Formats: sequence, C-alpha cells, structure tokens
Amino acid sequence: MTDMQIKQIVDIVKTGRVLTDESDRFSYSFDASFGTFLPDAVIQTKSVEEVAELVKFANREKIPVYPRGQSTSLSGGPLPVKGGMVIDLSVMNDLLEIDEEDLVAVVSPGVLTADIHKAAEAKGLMYPPDPSSSHVSTIGGNLAENSGGPRGLKYGVTKDYVIGLEVITPEGEIIRTGGRTVKNVTGYDLTKLIVGSEGTLGIITKAILRLIPKPPASETVMAVFDSLVDAGRAISQILTSGILPSKMELMDQASMVAVENYQPSGLPTDAEALILIELDGHPMAVRDEAEQVSQVCKQIGAREVRVPQTKAEKEDVWKARKLVSPAIVRVKPTKISEDATVPRSKIPEMCRRLQEIKEKYNIHLVVFGHVGDGNLHPNIIADKADKEEMARVEKAVAEIFEAAVQLGGTLSGEHGIGTMKAPFMEMELGAAGLDMMKRIKQAWDPHNIMNPGKIFPEPGQKLVLSE
Amino acid sequence: MTDMQIKQIVDIVKTGRVLTDESDRFSYSFDASFGTFLPDAVIQTKSVEEVAELVKFANREKIPVYPRGQSTSLSGGPLPVKGGMVIDLSVMNDLLEIDEEDLVAVVSPGVLTADIHKAAEAKGLMYPPDPSSSHVSTIGGNLAENSGGPRGLKYGVTKDYVIGLEVITPEGEIIRTGGRTVKNVTGYDLTKLIVGSEGTLGIITKAILRLIPKPPASETVMAVFDSLVDAGRAISQILTSGILPSKMELMDQASMVAVENYQPSGLPTDAEALILIELDGHPMAVRDEAEQVSQVCKQIGAREVRVPQTKAEKEDVWKARKLVSPAIVRVKPTKISEDATVPRSKIPEMCRRLQEIKEKYNIHLVVFGHVGDGNLHPNIIADKADKEEMARVEKAVAEIFEAAVQLGGTLSGEHGIGTMKAPFMEMELGAAGLDMMKRIKQAWDPHNIMNPGKIFPEPGQKLVLSE
Repeated sequence: MTDMQIKQIVDIVKTGRVLTDESDRFSYSFDASFGTFLPDAVIQTKSVEEVAELVKFANREKIPVYPRGQSTSLSGGPLPVKGGMVIDLSVMNDLLEIDEEDLVAVVSPGVLTADIHKAAEAKGLMYPPDPSSSHVSTIGGNLAENSGGPRGLKYGVTKDYVIGLEVITPEGEIIRTGGRTVKNVTGYDLTKLIVGSEGTLGIITKAILRLIPKPPASETVMAVFDSLVDAGRAISQILTSGILPSKMELMDQASMVAVENYQPSGLPTDAEALILIELDGHPMAVRDEAEQVSQVCKQIGAREVRVPQTKAEKEDVWKARKLVSPAIVRVKPTKISEDATVPRSKIPEMCRRLQEIKEKYNIHLVVFGHVGDGNLHPNIIADKADKEEMARVEKAVAEIFEAAVQLGGTLSGEHGIGTMKAPFMEMELGAAGLDMMKRIKQAWDPHNIMNPGKIFPEPGQKLVLSE
Repeated sequence: MTDMQIKQIVDIVKTGRVLTDESDRFSYSFDASFGTFLPDAVIQTKSVEEVAELVKFANREKIPVYPRGQSTSLSGGPLPVKGGMVIDLSVMNDLLEIDEEDLVAVVSPGVLTADIHKAAEAKGLMYPPDPSSSHVSTIGGNLAENSGGPRGLKYGVTKDYVIGLEVITPEGEIIRTGGRTVKNVTGYDLTKLIVGSEGTLGIITKAILRLIPKPPASETVMAVFDSLVDAGRAISQILTSGILPSKMELMDQASMVAVENYQPSGLPTDAEALILIELDGHPMAVRDEAEQVSQVCKQIGAREVRVPQTKAEKEDVWKARKLVSPAIVRVKPTKISEDATVPRSKIPEMCRRLQEIKEKYNIHLVVFGHVGDGNLHPNIIADKADKEEMARVEKAVAEIFEAAVQLGGTLSGEHGIGTMKAPFMEMELGAAGLDMMKRIKQAWDPHNIMNPGKIFPEPGQKLVLSE
C-alpha cells in the first residue's frame, strides 16, 4: 500500500486504531500453520460501518483484505500472503446475547467460543460445536472455517448451528442472510455458503446461532484394545446398535507413548488403541447406554473396559486425550496436524495406509482424533530446521491426502484448506467442481480482494513446509 | 421448441422416452400450487449421461429445462412456466442403498422419501426429514426444495442430512460435491447451496444422505388449552426445561372444527388450541420426559392432558392432525397453504396478526403446523372460481408475508419460493442480498435455462392466484 492509501485508511477508521509499525504488523504475520507474511496495515475497530467503508475502499483500490480472529488456524486461513490490510475482528467482541425463548445466541465475531458455551450453559442450553481451541479461538474464526470438534459425531459442526449472519460483501455492502428461524428456504442458502468459505466471500460481523437444551447427564466409557482393527469393529457395532454417542475418540499407541513420556497418566502403552466414548442425554438413558457400550467392547475383545464413576475420574480420563497435542510437540518442535477424513468404514484401511506412509518416509507419525465420524488427526512431528526431513514430510502429507481421497474421503474434515491444502483441491473436486466454486468467488469478488491466496490453488502451486 | 430441436432431443434420448403429445404434456403442466403451463416436450430417462447431454443441448440452444419429481410442490417449483423441456426424474428410481457402517443412504432422485424411511428402519437406522408428502414425493423434489416436516424441531430439515451429491450443472457437466463423510470443509459447500436451490442451479442425479440410529422408543403427549397464548407459554417452557421433543404440533380451533365436520374424532372444538408433542429416544428417558411435559402443561393451565398408552391410541391422536389438510379442502375447493415462519417467541404475536388479517379480508383461515420451530401453516380456504374472493385472498397472503418478515421471520420455512413467493423476495432479503443470490445464478447458468421463472422475481411481478 502507498502512504496515501494508509492515510485514507486512517481517515476511514474514526473510532478504532490503524497499526503500521513493523513490530505491530509482525504480530499479525503468522498463525498456527506455516509461513510469515507481513501485512501493510492492521485495523482494529468495533464499528461494522467502518469495516464496510474499508472494504469499499479496498475494492476500489484493489488492496487485499485479510479478516482475522485469534489466528489459531492450522491451515493458514488468516495469513496475509499478499500483504494489504489485516482486519483484527477479535476486538469486535461486545455482543453475546442468549435468547432462551427463541433458543438462539446472537454474537459478534470476536467473542470466544468458550464464552458462548458458558453463557448458554448458564441458561440450561448448549452450543454444541466444540473445537479443541474453543477457549482461545473466536466464533468468527470458527464460522469462517466451519470448525468441527469431538461432538461432531452426534451434533454436527459449526455450520449446523448457524441460522443467520450479517456479512460485509467483498464490495462493502452490508447484507443479512437467514434469520432467527431454524427453517428458512427463502432463496439460496447464503448462510451455509459463507460459513466455511474461509473469509474469501466477505466478513462476518454478526451471527445468529441455534442452541439446544443442554443434555442433563453424561457418562464416559474407556476401552483398551490390543488390536486397532478390533477397536474399529467395536466402533462400528456401537453405532449400529441404536446408540449415538456424543464423542468417540481414539488414541493410537504412539499417542499414548507420547503422553506417558510427557506426563505419566497410567495409559496402557503396550496396547494398539484406546477409545473414549461419551454418552449424553437423560440420566437413566446414559447409564443404560454406557452398560450396553461396555458389553459391546468386551464381546469384541477389549482387554479393559472402564466406566469412571465420579466427576473427577471422568475428567482424568479425558485429560489424557487433551494431553496428546502438547505431548507430541515435546518430541520435536514442529507439528503438522492433518485432518484428512474418511468414511467411517474405511478407518481400519486408513490406519493401515498411514502406517505404510510412516515407514516409507521414515517420519514420526501419531494418530488420534474423532474416530466416530472418520475425522482422524494424523500428526507428523518434525523439525522445520531440518530441510531433508521436511522434504520427506511434504511427500508424506501429499500421500496422506491421496489416501483419504482414494478411500472416498476428503482433504479436510475441520481445519480448512487455506494455503496448506490448496494445491490438492483439484485432486478431490475435479476441474469442473473447482470451476463452479471459482465462479462464485469471481461473481462475488471480481477484484479478488477478500483473503486472496486461499482455497484456490495458484498455477503450479505446491505444498511447501520448509521456508 | 422447433420440430428440428425436438428431433435432436429424440436423438439424444436413446434409452428413454420423449413425450410430445398434448395429452401427455398436459399431465406435466401443473403441480400442487397454481397455474398450468404446457411444456414443449417431456423426457423420461434413467441415464444420467443422456440428461447431461440434454442439458448441454438446451444450454447451446437456450431452451428452458424443468426438472420434476412427483410435483407435490406447493410453491410452483416444477411448473414449466416458460415452456421448453420437462425432465421427469421420477423414473430415475433404481438406486436405494443403505450402508450401515458408513451410516449413509445412497439414492437416485426418483426414489420416494417414504421408501428411504422404510429401508433405513429395516436396518435400525433413521432418515429424519419427514415432509407430510413423503409417501408420494421423491427425494429429488425434497432435495430441490429442502423440505422440512414435523421432526424439524429436533432433527432439522433435508439439508441437514445431505452430505454428497452428483449434479448436472446448467452447462451439462457432471460434478460431485461433498462425499460420504459428515465432516468436509474442502472449499465452498456446494452441497448445501444446491439443496434448496429449487432446480435453478442444476439437476441432482444422486445423493448421499446421512442416517442416524433409530431412537428405540417414543411417547406422545396431547394437551388441550382454552387459550392459544397459554399453549404458546407451555411450548416455551418445555423447550427451556432440558427436553427437546421430536415433534410439537398445533391445531387451532378452526382446524379442529374442520376435522370434526369431516370425520368426527372427538376433538375439543370449544378449545382454542390443541398441542401434540412427541418425544423419542431411550425408553426410560421418554417415559420420564412425557411425565415432565405433562406436568408443565398442567401447571400452565391445560384443561386436559393425555398420554396415550397403546400404539393404537397414539396413532389415533396423530391421525386427527393428519386429517387437517384433507378436512379443510372439504370446506371450499381451493387451499392456499402458506409456511411463513417466525422466531419461536413470536408465535403468539403471529397468531394475533393472522386473526386480524382473517377479519380484515373476511377470509376462511385455518392455522396449524409445526409450532415448536415457529413453522406455522396458515391455510386459506377459498374458491378460485370466485374472482372477488381470490382478490381478497391475494391481499391477505401478502399481509401474512409482511407480518412474518416484520416479526423477524421468513416467507418460507419449508415449501420454497417457486413462482408463488418470488414477488416478495426483496422485502425479506433487501436489494443487495437478492443481488448476491442472482450473481450465483448468473455465474452458474449464464443463459438462464435451469428452471427459469422461479425464486427471482421478474420486474413488476405480483402474486396472482386468480387465473
């Protein structure tokens, strides 16, 4: 941007701040994925009108606009890869209203997702989407990326709970989509198009979220299997027995070893798989279902099945699962967290392929995640200073994507495409499918100013993890 | 179409039929809404490739293409308002595959929705969307219109269960969207854009539907209220007490009177409202919840609360609700069935406004529907031969739409826009919101061949019910 353009931006932003010092801009140059890209200016304002004016100006002057929440993205969503302006929406955090009668929450984009959980629970309600980052990530980021989480198995993902939006279009118009009703078929579903479009179709400035009554009780079942294949069979059998658990999480042997080395938790490191199942609902129902789930696991040959009784015991069991992420970065400093997702029946085959890829490229691979909906998290642990290792990692990641797509799955279950997976889009969608997406982008954003460089691959673009 | 064009169509359709006789074409000139429009040709073929060739041809020659299921549409979805070709997809009905492990159904568009219900239930699974027409409507029509139904309260609508599609684009390309995984954030969500786009963005030739475990038990509670406002209060209180019923249906006094005149069912015709609540889930849970719901209704002043015990008793109670539609057309021959939907808290106010509209225009208005999610069905009963009455009806319908939008609701909860509600689109969406929808249509269908005349109003278009 020119000095003149910066001056014009400062004129537009009457109630907020424009950051142009290099040290300030540096804080906005990275996220939880790879690469650093310095923006020309960072804008913080609570005024929707000012943001709309900024976008109008950017559209006129063809300046890239990068909306940003707390930048916990694992796929490069908020990276300002082409410079221009970053709009820091984490400051737009004043509105968090729970309407018990309409069963909705109305929120501004900078509100932390965990704060929505708390506010809903205080009124006996629940906002189900629970990305692992919810205590630090904003709802605006969750909306842009259509975040998932463990409860996706029973309750679905962010998109399933968004019924209305206020959005600034790439040309700076403020539009409203959907509304406060769960049923709405008035024209095209712009709400569900914009949620998950990773900030490439506009800036979300308000959202209406659907809430549900909070289930009054929950139970947890922990089962240890000597064989990963048996664990897979148990999962299938539970899901076809009339029970829909709220969570079904898997930890493989490597995850358990990592946790035990990091913070000993009594995990069975000689077993191939540990599964954790949470059931929620009516107290009598979940007790009975926990019993049924335990029986299935035992019949299939679990070597240990445990139903923790007290709240503290339950928390202990889930804590081990939460330790996987911090534990594995202790092994090596660089974590490449993937979310390639396969149809549920293909989980054992995907596990086998991951094992092959691990051996072929001699990489440190850990597998855990939301096994009930096929959303595994193969994590590769490496050191990005080691160029030779990172070259092997790049090849391994490409093969993981290929395996997922070959098995009828998808590149990304919940982390988004961003910069990281853009080179693989055509492999999954085909040229015609990708073209239909591009047409929407071009029709809405003719000057390609909204989050350019994301989702759509540039000609010849390849995955690069080494800098 | 010219004779030459018809001949070219006949050449493309090698495995199916092309109907051109006037008597055949007449059968395809109407649906369950208003108006008759004769197509130039009707095509029946099971071949996706032939349909794709037809669309390519139509795109080249700028011939309107009207996809059609069983034509139960209440909003004019399949009406061939600009002539051209109707593609009868009800013949594409061979594929209905239930995959228990992946928890999906894979279906072709001509399959009846009720047959999907049966096939899923045979394997202990459930396809939740339950439009009232499911025994006669095709899944293709349900997908095009994003159909709802009573279970929308707990389970959502058609769109919430579609995870993958095969679609013929308006230029005749065959693309695949989504897949067999519940979580998928690879690019824009074309699946949810196409579902509910009323056949204006392409032709769905295959769908992958998400299934859930079938709840093992259900209970019904029937409550009679002297006051409609009390019924509304009971509904709110139940929904904020940690219970999410699978259905919550309302019948107003006029509906009960109509049913009693049609087929006496012992309904309390002197009461203002009857609500029917269904709870589904674990047997112990639903028994307990039925008890809690009964208590709430009694506390709020229901004059009668009943929990039918046997299967036959339960069916009797629901039968009365199902009789409303056939009963009201006995009063007068023309039924204008609306689905204006309001936020749940605005139901009492909407009922009051409907009463005012009824009196102002001296029309026969009956209110029933899915009260738990704000999706009321105000039905106007009239005689379309009576021009003076229909002119009053047209004004009343416009005021119903205005009331819904003013109360923060929507023109259509589940019937779609079609021809019937197109004139009111801008009132709800604003010019900028409608423009963003049009841009998608233009980008995908530059020659406007796919179901032209639907959703988007023509300049100066008004609602016309009299012919």
